[in-house]
Amino acid sequence: VILKLNAKANETDISRLVGRLTAMGLQVAVNRGEPGTSLAVVNGLDATVRPDLFIHLPMVEEVTPFNRKFKLASREFKSQRTVVRVKETAIGEGSFTVIAGPCAIESEAQIQAIAEAVAKAGARVLRGGAFKPRTSPYDFQGLGEKGLKFMRQAADANGLLCVSEAMSPEHVPLVAEHVDIVQIGARNMQNFELLKKAGLCRRPVLLKRGLSATYMEFILAAEYLLSFGNPDVILCERGIRTFETYTRNTLDLNAVPVLKNLTHLPIAVDPSHGTGLRDLIRPLARAAFAVGADALMVEVHTDPDAAVSDSQQTIGTEAFREVMKDLTRLGPALGRPLDAKAAPLSKSGADHLGGRVPT
Amino acid sequence: VILKLNAKANETDISRLVGRLTAMGLQVAVNRGEPGTSLAVVNGLDATVRPDLFIHLPMVEEVTPFNRKFKLASREFKSQRTVVRVKETAIGEGSFTVIAGPCAIESEAQIQAIAEAVAKAGARVLRGGAFKPRTSPYDFQGLGEKGLKFMRQAADANGLLCVSEAMSPEHVPLVAEHVDIVQIGARNMQNFELLKKAGLCRRPVLLKRGLSATYMEFILAAEYLLSFGNPDVILCERGIRTFETYTRNTLDLNAVPVLKNLTHLPIAVDPSHGTGLRDLIRPLARAAFAVGADALMVEVHTDPDAAVSDSQQTIGTEAFREVMKDLTRLGPALGRPLDAKAAPLSKSGADHLGGRVPT
Amino acid sequence: VILKLNAKANETDISRLVGRLTAMGLQVAVNRGEPGTSLAVVNGLDATVRPDLFIHLPMVEEVTPFNRKFKLASREFKSQRTVVRVKETAIGEGSFTVIAGPCAIESEAQIQAIAEAVAKAGARVLRGGAFKPRTSPYDFQGLGEKGLKFMRQAADANGLLCVSEAMSPEHVPLVAEHVDIVQIGARNMQNFELLKKAGLCRRPVLLKRGLSATYMEFILAAEYLLSFGNPDVILCERGIRTFETYTRNTLDLNAVPVLKNLTHLPIAVDPSHGTGLRDLIRPLARAAFAVGADALMVEVHTDPDAAVSDSQQTIGTEAFREVMKDLTRLGPALGRPLDAKAAPLSKSGADHLGGRVPT
Amino acid sequence: VILKLNAKANETDISRLVGRLTAMGLQVAVNRGEPGTSLAVVNGLDATVRPDLFIHLPMVEEVTPFNRKFKLASREFKSQRTVVRVKETAIGEGSFTVIAGPCAIESEAQIQAIAEAVAKAGARVLRGGAFKPRTSPYDFQGLGEKGLKFMRQAADANGLLCVSEAMSPEHVPLVAEHVDIVQIGARNMQNFELLKKAGLCRRPVLLKRGLSATYMEFILAAEYLLSFGNPDVILCERGIRTFETYTRNTLDLNAVPVLKNLTHLPIAVDPSHGTGLRDLIRPLARAAFAVGADALMVEVHTDPDAAVSDSQQTIGTEAFREVMKDLTRLGPALGRPLDAKAAPLSKSGADHLGGRVPT
Repeated sequence: VILKLNAKANETDISRLVGRLTAMGLQVAVNRGEPGTSLAVVNGLDATVRPDLFIHLPMVEEVTPFNRKFKLASREFKSQRTVVRVKETAIGEGSFTVIAGPCAIESEAQIQAIAEAVAKAGARVLRGGAFKPRTSPYDFQGLGEKGLKFMRQAADANGLLCVSEAMSPEHVPLVAEHVDIVQIGARNMQNFELLKKAGLCRRPVLLKRGLSATYMEFILAAEYLLSFGNPDVILCERGIRTFETYTRNTLDLNAVPVLKNLTHLPIAVDPSHGTGLRDLIRPLARAAFAVGADALMVEVHTDPDAAVSDSQQTIGTEAFREVMKDLTRLGPALGRPLDAKAAPLSKSGADHLGGRVPT
Repeated sequence: VILKLNAKANETDISRLVGRLTAMGLQVAVNRGEPGTSLAVVNGLDATVRPDLFIHLPMVEEVTPFNRKFKLASREFKSQRTVVRVKETAIGEGSFTVIAGPCAIESEAQIQAIAEAVAKAGARVLRGGAFKPRTSPYDFQGLGEKGLKFMRQAADANGLLCVSEAMSPEHVPLVAEHVDIVQIGARNMQNFELLKKAGLCRRPVLLKRGLSATYMEFILAAEYLLSFGNPDVILCERGIRTFETYTRNTLDLNAVPVLKNLTHLPIAVDPSHGTGLRDLIRPLARAAFAVGADALMVEVHTDPDAAVSDSQQTIGTEAFREVMKDLTRLGPALGRPLDAKAAPLSKSGADHLGGRVPT
Repeated sequence: VILKLNAKANETDISRLVGRLTAMGLQVAVNRGEPGTSLAVVNGLDATVRPDLFIHLPMVEEVTPFNRKFKLASREFKSQRTVVRVKETAIGEGSFTVIAGPCAIESEAQIQAIAEAVAKAGARVLRGGAFKPRTSPYDFQGLGEKGLKFMRQAADANGLLCVSEAMSPEHVPLVAEHVDIVQIGARNMQNFELLKKAGLCRRPVLLKRGLSATYMEFILAAEYLLSFGNPDVILCERGIRTFETYTRNTLDLNAVPVLKNLTHLPIAVDPSHGTGLRDLIRPLARAAFAVGADALMVEVHTDPDAAVSDSQQTIGTEAFREVMKDLTRLGPALGRPLDAKAAPLSKSGADHLGGRVPT
Repeated sequence: VILKLNAKANETDISRLVGRLTAMGLQVAVNRGEPGTSLAVVNGLDATVRPDLFIHLPMVEEVTPFNRKFKLASREFKSQRTVVRVKETAIGEGSFTVIAGPCAIESEAQIQAIAEAVAKAGARVLRGGAFKPRTSPYDFQGLGEKGLKFMRQAADANGLLCVSEAMSPEHVPLVAEHVDIVQIGARNMQNFELLKKAGLCRRPVLLKRGLSATYMEFILAAEYLLSFGNPDVILCERGIRTFETYTRNTLDLNAVPVLKNLTHLPIAVDPSHGTGLRDLIRPLARAAFAVGADALMVEVHTDPDAAVSDSQQTIGTEAFREVMKDLTRLGPALGRPLDAKAAPLSKSGADHLGGRVPT
């Protein structure tokens, strides 16, 4: 249930109330939003608790049940849109952030060259895999920690943020140490132990949609992250598995307005994995912006044909500049600037879903 | 095989060559394009014919095999993009045509009111079903010919073209008599007898993608129309069936650049069927334009909640005006005007794939 | 709604009641089953009719609403299983009927040789396509009526029944004239004009499931046949389209018990189309029998590698004998004989869903 | 490449050869099979190695390349079928093993009662989840180690083996300590870090097919296990995600003969998850046996309606006895006994794919 508090409730009132509910064995989250603070009781309700009586608790003005299985991710609980802030970049309502870089970090020189190229063209975040989830055990498995260090240097040297994937619970602290945003890959969207660990880390998480995950399952995976205390979740549509074989996946742009309607989280779109074909990235990048996504994630390489993985869906730096030119032209028509720095600064998002004592 | 002719080949040369090939039992199509004329031998090649010898025929300069099962729809055979012209409207490269109207024609007054509203808002073509393909035999099956007449009047009175579906071979002449564009529905995309009949009719055909048709199957369905002599085919992406259940279908915008790469035909996008949800139509209409589609098809009703079918995916006239406002704003950023009348007039498309004697 | 009649209701009572309901503008079907007769009011109920008052009609003992969109196909309306009888063969509860033959009828000699081989091995019904639904317009389209005649002779000469596909409404009378069972193909499962025509014909219909048809859509397609007056419908599972590409389709054996639970119609299984691979037919034929199907449909050719279509999924006569040997061995363990002649003779099925005046 | 050795090669020859190849930086696996020993070079081949020269190595008689991305799982490398032996039970060719038990271990009493019931009815292996992969973070997450202990006791007390799922790399040693077979769940089929850890453990692994995993991806997931040194892998088909919504998943029985053709591993079938519906389990259990599966996995509970998870797809003990009765009757007709103890004892499978030094 959601407990909407009186506008006069101060921090002491809130923490007293949270303490009281927690003492009842309930799991509670707090949203200090506009207009006013709400508490979500997300777990622990059983036959011994009568939620209708919560209306009699001090400062509680309204008690409403959740409509769906997801709670903290819902707009009922948090009507303002989440803006994920990393340093000076704000991912969320009001701007369009471009994340670019190679599928895999291959060498120090490679990631440096690509970082420089994508930064010049206007990207804000560098992507690159250090731990690679590969279908075959015989394929290149990534450079590991060494790769993360190369990436950090390349990002810093070019004024970029960076994002990389953690593939198992043990990886999370290591990846979080080196990068600004921790990625959970599509194949791990329902690796629940990994989600729990990422929920406990102090970095924003970019969560990719599973190959055949429904919207509900996708949001519930995000709910794992939120319920373990991490409020900074970016959802990423990256193509779903369908009967079609000409493309690697089918990029599902329906997902963007659906997820915007159901959740308050920002949405990224990855047309590289979403199509698997280089030629399709430019038009689908435009479509992702036009449909209302908050960020674009795209695989770029200085020598795409020589990329050790995902070569067919990786564009060169020249093609990436064309993509950026299209997006720059579209920005004004969509009423949204490309430059993330221009986004209005909201209150700190870091605590808006806090209050959980993870078990 | 494709026979590229010498630039000096005149009509007499061409018809002589066609006659000679036809006499060999081959099925031949002609493309009088830029640069120069080509012939396609699409059928009849068997062990008794040696295509390599065609190079010795008069005026033949180059003989190349087809790479795929589809032939007349391929860009190898016809590199210029097809522009489908109906009266003063040109659907194809260089503009964006909006097709709007109710799912089903319900009454004279209903179609009149909707036609007026969508024309005022900027639509160029009126849609509406007179013969309805309904999953259940007990659902409303449409007004039939009476509906077509109501639609014709409503379109004429408001300066619109109109499109309606033919559901069986017998319907084709009747529908073609009343409307400007004959629609083949998704459930009939592989109704081959219907395709043959529509291929023989003298109206442009809007061919909807089947619910689970691959791109190749979709293009081969168009190939039926082309090979039976109808050069004016508009492909329409309308959502595919996937595992997702929140939306009625998953609109596949990958389809637009893929089909543009593989064929020369114009592409329309129908976000109404593609999503099944009213709220998603506006953002996906923008995305359809941005991704490069040539036309938009959208279900509009003056009283959407009272629509006899597809009510959930039908928008009202106010919402339609919002869609048009978005598209108008996007046009300049995409370098493409909304008003179809502004499209540059190309040579008549009516004969570019002619020469077939249907059997 | 379903009107259960008093056990004493005689034919005069029934026809009087049907007349009265029909006069109200309702569409009514009759089931003279065990225990007792029921009427289904399948169409025409609107705000002016109060179904609860039907309980006051003479001989009506119970009025129950339909739970789902399908009505005549439901077990609520007809609890006894339908047995489709053709000459001495009964397809339905209590036996397992094998339908075998080539994908396409290629010549008189070919169909004769195959008919002889499959009859000897124990098949009861000969299959073969005279009108072929082909994805490409350039593929072999079938021998047409000539093929039907060849097939009829081959069937008669070998004591077999025969089944062939009608692809358009005009084909139905022609196909029905020559064969014992009219097939509706998967691509035409929602060709509603074809369904209506087949519903009016006087032959049993074998209805193949569409490539991506849900169970509900499949049953509603059968409902078209039933509601247009044809009670003898055999449903045929033939594989669905999934993400898997190794097989042509994914044979869905869940379908058999699901359809048995929801409907009273007999179910056939086609592992040839369901897998697309010769090697898989034998194990899946066993599975089809074990899961409870009433019939098997399999593509057999005397020279499968030379078959003009579907060669990869067609088995030879020796392999077919192995299939039959497996099935013969399984029969006693499943408590069901292979020989259809042994099935208990039920009351004529021809009139059990009658009473409809098609419009 | 596969190196087929001379029949006279003894253990010294083999280990010398393995040492030589390993020294070249290659990853090698050994198959001591009938007829004769083969080595697989699965990794490390690059431009500096010329595989054709391997023919000159001592005892090497034939060098053949792998046809596909999977190697150790292929029948080219190991033509004899793998039989997974646990204590006196042999899962693989020649018998049919029944694995039964609750979705989740709920209490000591619950698992005891169920173990007793399924053992009496003829099951050989007890299933039950201690770590539960749940779509929502608010659902019951399992009893953890306590559950594993309850299960071990229940299995031992009733002469059963037991199997339970490990959800993260850290779980593997714990789960392996308590159970006989470690399960990798469908959602973790491509959790590659988990696969590596399970590949290193000394227990057989039951690997469930991912919800939308192709056969190739499924086999490559098994290849992770094999290439990390674990030869005892059982593949488990458990239904795939399709467009159909009536059932939870679509059980894909095509998978059984396909996987048998492509690999040497035993195959289990899980109709509980494969259908999600209690009523469908009995017919699909028969079909699984008839199609050639080596094992059946089924959810059974003494009080299915009260099960804390997957209640709808769990059968009661009476229904389970009906399933066993059907299978017992089918055994002789399929030439395969139900009782796993009767299976012919083959040579130890434990070393047949050994030789790897995991990195």
